[in-house]
Amino acid sequence: MRIVFSTGDIHGIGPEIILKSFMKLQESDHTFLVTGSCKVMEYYRERLDLPVKLKPVTDITALDDVPANKNGTLPVLSVAEPNIIQPGTLSAEAGKTAMLSLETAAKLCQSGVCDALVTAPIHKEAIALAGYHETGHTGFLAGMFPKSSPIMMFFDPVSKLRVALATIHEPLAKVPELIRTMDLDAFFLQLADALRKDFLIERPKTAVLGLNPHASDGGVMGSEEKEIILPCIERLSSRLRIDGPFPADGFFGAGKYRHYDIVVAMYHDQGLLPFKVLAFDTGINVTLGLPIVRTSPDHGTSFDIAGRGIASERSFYEAVLLALNIAQNRTTIPAP
Amino acid sequence: MRIVFSTGDIHGIGPEIILKSFMKLQESDHTFLVTGSCKVMEYYRERLDLPVKLKPVTDITALDDVPANKNGTLPVLSVAEPNIIQPGTLSAEAGKTAMLSLETAAKLCQSGVCDALVTAPIHKEAIALAGYHETGHTGFLAGMFPKSSPIMMFFDPVSKLRVALATIHEPLAKVPELIRTMDLDAFFLQLADALRKDFLIERPKTAVLGLNPHASDGGVMGSEEKEIILPCIERLSSRLRIDGPFPADGFFGAGKYRHYDIVVAMYHDQGLLPFKVLAFDTGINVTLGLPIVRTSPDHGTSFDIAGRGIASERSFYEAVLLALNIAQNRTTIPAP
Repeated sequence: MRIVFSTGDIHGIGPEIILKSFMKLQESDHTFLVTGSCKVMEYYRERLDLPVKLKPVTDITALDDVPANKNGTLPVLSVAEPNIIQPGTLSAEAGKTAMLSLETAAKLCQSGVCDALVTAPIHKEAIALAGYHETGHTGFLAGMFPKSSPIMMFFDPVSKLRVALATIHEPLAKVPELIRTMDLDAFFLQLADALRKDFLIERPKTAVLGLNPHASDGGVMGSEEKEIILPCIERLSSRLRIDGPFPADGFFGAGKYRHYDIVVAMYHDQGLLPFKVLAFDTGINVTLGLPIVRTSPDHGTSFDIAGRGIASERSFYEAVLLALNIAQNRTTIPAP
Repeated sequence: MRIVFSTGDIHGIGPEIILKSFMKLQESDHTFLVTGSCKVMEYYRERLDLPVKLKPVTDITALDDVPANKNGTLPVLSVAEPNIIQPGTLSAEAGKTAMLSLETAAKLCQSGVCDALVTAPIHKEAIALAGYHETGHTGFLAGMFPKSSPIMMFFDPVSKLRVALATIHEPLAKVPELIRTMDLDAFFLQLADALRKDFLIERPKTAVLGLNPHASDGGVMGSEEKEIILPCIERLSSRLRIDGPFPADGFFGAGKYRHYDIVVAMYHDQGLLPFKVLAFDTGINVTLGLPIVRTSPDHGTSFDIAGRGIASERSFYEAVLLALNIAQNRTTIPAP
């Protein structure tokens, strides 16, 4: 397999965790490639004194000649050479470099040159400064593959907890209306299909969280459970193994998530709050439902510790292992 | 000190955790009292074969004669004698008994007969069935003490984590508008004042969570942080030690809560999701800002295990210890 890494925001911890993860991956049978900036990667390699060799690659058609990684050399395909590299700062140039890196890496997967994409963290404000309207990975990839409906899922390889989000980077005020208007049936069916293909879980056991506190306590606080979520679960119950809607706090507090292959949260913080507490530094973000394989660490750019050599590569490294795993699973011929 | 227990929903685990906690408390120097139903308490005592003696008390004026608990006798003041006791079921009669028990217990604190109230869990649907409009403890107590503005706070005596909620049992769709219209300044000032009086924390270090995902990433997703929360924090920063707004998931994921005396969540699940994961079975609910002291366990009625003798009394027991502690702190004369 060949895995491509996008650099993320060059002023965050992305380049550092890519280099550190590559050091752990050199002995694998797979090959790796960075899209971004040779200058940036060299800056962090030197600043952090990491024993990695970098090799500039300029010609995409020559990518088949990327050597195996056994010799400790990481190829870097430059898509931009930023003028200023200043860890921990917000800049339009860094935002633009991050997006060019992402775009190139995704296209390498789209064309089959690479088998999976692992993205380092971007900074939404930097992307917005660079003039992009779409400031998130998932939204960008959705635009690149307009026939697909990507699902944001988080996976902790230690606890095996999986959390998917029904709505993602939305203002909280928009969430209830989105839950009412989105095609929840299609979402759950697609989620089950993706778990079958990418994780080889034949009939994933799915738990659905309520939108309101206490899942509305039977309609006392909000009506989305009665009017939208419960009817959807009932419609799907003959086709999927699906339960809920559960009061979110009690569901996680009592450890009920251990009985399910996947937990569906209605909005970002409802899923990410318990996930990040439970997954510590091993959580991975996976975009399901795309033609390409894409994973990433579940943390941000961490400007506060960028360039200091103290960032943990654990989540990025786990994201690489999962990307390899999913890419291999997708080549598996399902049992008849 | 004399602590009064309200029974909560008689078909939940309330009576069981009261009896089990009392067994642990018998050797304390304090006295305890249950308001609810002698018949119900006797039913659970016998069913679960617990070595507790119950003593009916009918005359409130005779309460001063309640014996010390050294002899293992728990006095019960009957406010209702329900016809049917059926653990795990929803009933209007159980809802009414729960509310009468709460009302009587709160009045005993109001009049100074008791020093603190510890409430066992009620079931909002049962309360609604009984015809009550106000179905929560905090709302009921707010109605009883109309000059006060109660704040719902959660406390874990093990990790010392404290989480307060800016909005409580509201449909999620109403939360953003409530954050815009409530008096957030008064909320934070009152919270700091309550922590000073009840926990003897002179200048509590306060962390404020954002409303939107990533605390809106600088306004990319929602505007409440920029328009409401941040200006409020800036106005108060000369009077309080207050930081934020923080992205909620990263704040808890990175363990930043350890550096604060109190974390303020904008809505129910934002506070309760991380709290319940972190506090396991030791979490306590405290109502700050009332003339009376009131604590409770942070869990619900647990109809699924009611009457089976397997409910953990840990949270209720911790709630009693905290109630004693706060009642004692309130008698402390502050340093000049």
